[in-house]
Amino acid sequence: MKKLPSFLITLSTVMFFVFFSSCGQQADSPEETARQGFRAAPRIISPELLPDNRVTFRLFAKDASSVTITGEWQQGFGASEVMMRNDTGLFSLTVGPLNPELYAYNFTVDGVKALDPANVQVRRDGSNYQNFFIIPGPESDLYFHNHDVPHGTVSKVWYHSDVLGFERRMYVYTPPDYNNSDNKYPVFYLLHGAGGDEDAWTNMGRTAQIMDNLIARGKAIPMVVVMTNGNANQAGAQNEVPPLPQTTGGRGQEDAVTAMVRGGFEQHLVKDVIPFIEENYKVMTGRDKRAIAGLSMGGMHTQTITYDNPGMFGYIGVFSMGLMNFGPQNRDEETVEKERDEKIEALKNSGYELYWIACGTDDFLYESVTTLREVLDKHDFRYIYRESSGGHTWANWRIYLSEFAPMLFK
Amino acid sequence: MKKLPSFLITLSTVMFFVFFSSCGQQADSPEETARQGFRAAPRIISPELLPDNRVTFRLFAKDASSVTITGEWQQGFGASEVMMRNDTGLFSLTVGPLNPELYAYNFTVDGVKALDPANVQVRRDGSNYQNFFIIPGPESDLYFHNHDVPHGTVSKVWYHSDVLGFERRMYVYTPPDYNNSDNKYPVFYLLHGAGGDEDAWTNMGRTAQIMDNLIARGKAIPMVVVMTNGNANQAGAQNEVPPLPQTTGGRGQEDAVTAMVRGGFEQHLVKDVIPFIEENYKVMTGRDKRAIAGLSMGGMHTQTITYDNPGMFGYIGVFSMGLMNFGPQNRDEETVEKERDEKIEALKNSGYELYWIACGTDDFLYESVTTLREVLDKHDFRYIYRESSGGHTWANWRIYLSEFAPMLFK
Repeated sequence: MKKLPSFLITLSTVMFFVFFSSCGQQADSPEETARQGFRAAPRIISPELLPDNRVTFRLFAKDASSVTITGEWQQGFGASEVMMRNDTGLFSLTVGPLNPELYAYNFTVDGVKALDPANVQVRRDGSNYQNFFIIPGPESDLYFHNHDVPHGTVSKVWYHSDVLGFERRMYVYTPPDYNNSDNKYPVFYLLHGAGGDEDAWTNMGRTAQIMDNLIARGKAIPMVVVMTNGNANQAGAQNEVPPLPQTTGGRGQEDAVTAMVRGGFEQHLVKDVIPFIEENYKVMTGRDKRAIAGLSMGGMHTQTITYDNPGMFGYIGVFSMGLMNFGPQNRDEETVEKERDEKIEALKNSGYELYWIACGTDDFLYESVTTLREVLDKHDFRYIYRESSGGHTWANWRIYLSEFAPMLFK
Repeated sequence: MKKLPSFLITLSTVMFFVFFSSCGQQADSPEETARQGFRAAPRIISPELLPDNRVTFRLFAKDASSVTITGEWQQGFGASEVMMRNDTGLFSLTVGPLNPELYAYNFTVDGVKALDPANVQVRRDGSNYQNFFIIPGPESDLYFHNHDVPHGTVSKVWYHSDVLGFERRMYVYTPPDYNNSDNKYPVFYLLHGAGGDEDAWTNMGRTAQIMDNLIARGKAIPMVVVMTNGNANQAGAQNEVPPLPQTTGGRGQEDAVTAMVRGGFEQHLVKDVIPFIEENYKVMTGRDKRAIAGLSMGGMHTQTITYDNPGMFGYIGVFSMGLMNFGPQNRDEETVEKERDEKIEALKNSGYELYWIACGTDDFLYESVTTLREVLDKHDFRYIYRESSGGHTWANWRIYLSEFAPMLFK
């Protein structure tokens, strides 16, 4: 008779676990369940994507006097929309129809930002956590995880930086057949913007989904994608890796501006990252097997790295970044111009395959991108300019990646 | 004169970027900054760890009438503490002193759960997002990322399951010297509980930090740690991988209970996961080079897998799970007992090195763990029993991992 009760205990236990886990709550204990499960109102559907691409958001907040929603479909400074309360305390709002795209959003409850407890899809934008959803359609088709295409591996890789003097982390995407073949692959170095880190391109940029889908459709050739941390004062993403201690041999404690302006990251990519990748991965080497692109600050890094190392990269992409100069800032403009002209001429003669500049017409850097093109034109420097609508946004950077990757290594 | 303004634009641009990114906000555009940066009150320090291990939490919520905090240091069903408002609208509360441990928490603002906008450390517990912090001390020392120890690589790996009939994802931890050496490593298969997924042991369980620190101190030998998704109806973690479509060859649409009870995961681990790992990684094979452990549902999986495959694993850990039976449920207890007795005898004679059972005295499965031990004792089955304080919690599972890993492969 002893087994019977214990048998029942364990079976009911599993049912108990699964009931709460099927509510989308980890039921590690009844206490946890009581604390979290019931509060999360798991039966509420939000966001609900309607057939006509309108979207309904819902939040149960019977004790709240005001709930608003802030989302990437909204225009203008500090835009938000008011959600309406019904007599049960359920706030809701239907927006759209929205164009096919990935949209981040969050609620604001009596002035405090809150995630949507009914939406498990969350992304990190710097230190800011937001929910997101994707409106399906041709324009967003590459952003979905598709079960019927092979998937690459994303690895969080630690390596030593001689230039910066400490251990650092990067993300490496290896394509679906990487483990099963003896092939060697070309390498695409993909750089993020200010406020981002090595997690940004996969988290905000959907890089793994975009590359999986492009490769499966034969639009991009299989390649290794290396996503570094462009902040020379960081070892890794702030949500997982603590700030560097004073004791590091490196310059981890210098502020972000100093770290950016002195060019430490740019030297580090060339002297630490590329050798590490070419030593530890099944990759091809040489100018025509290396690509580099970056957005915003990463576009600045891309310009600096390619100007200082002509012949190292055959494919170069500058996303949403214009003319810049980050040599010593106290020099007269003539010296700056002379140095820039020499570097442009050297890169012009380096035998690159593609130099691609992309910018949105609403980008606040649009003018400096125009100036960059004027300077390059003065040198008859060969480049392709892609002008999109929109501004300095991840929506554009996902589009630029989707268009740039298919042009590489062909 | 044309360069000068463009030069200034780009320099000021960078200062602008860095200013906002140093606020912990990704400043992709002024609009984004206006929307997010100012709302996040980045200058507020929360949580603030005080020298005596008390902790102060702060949230600016001038329009909220009630702010409470729910945290893992609290006892009892639905526990929470009220935060006090000052005349500027800043709510705060000081708790503790707290013992050295990792604590998750969240705010509740007028009845709605909210993350702490001043704390970038966030973990996902099923579909529930929580902030966390770690009180330093001997008991939590292994949970920190330490800059001065070598770090292993965590990879999100996709592979095919013949048993389940679809592509699945697992996490693989390879130790720090994996890439630099020709060594082969033993493999530890580490299984999560109900409501969790392949992300749970690194996210909730701090596995990468624990293994890095144990290996650096010479307390654990370098090993590969394989963290699978134990939900046979899932391809991958729900926050990154959508539910399987009806069209999959597999049984992705069956409910979680069916998936759990029919034993698909257990067969899958043996027939799909282990062969994949032993084919694609530099690992040793054979009983004495394979370890398996799981918590809760994963402890059930561990028992089923090791009973059905005596001689496959030399090191076996059952965390917070007792006697169970997940054969056909309609059989009489005698048949169940007879089959169990045979399996225990077979495992007893399989030459395993270690069978380790751990449970907390407050665990709601404590009684069934006692029953399991009584059944094993009846067979003179050799095992070590580790009884801790506390309940069915990740705090205990981190401790169990920290104690179990050092006993492996020695």
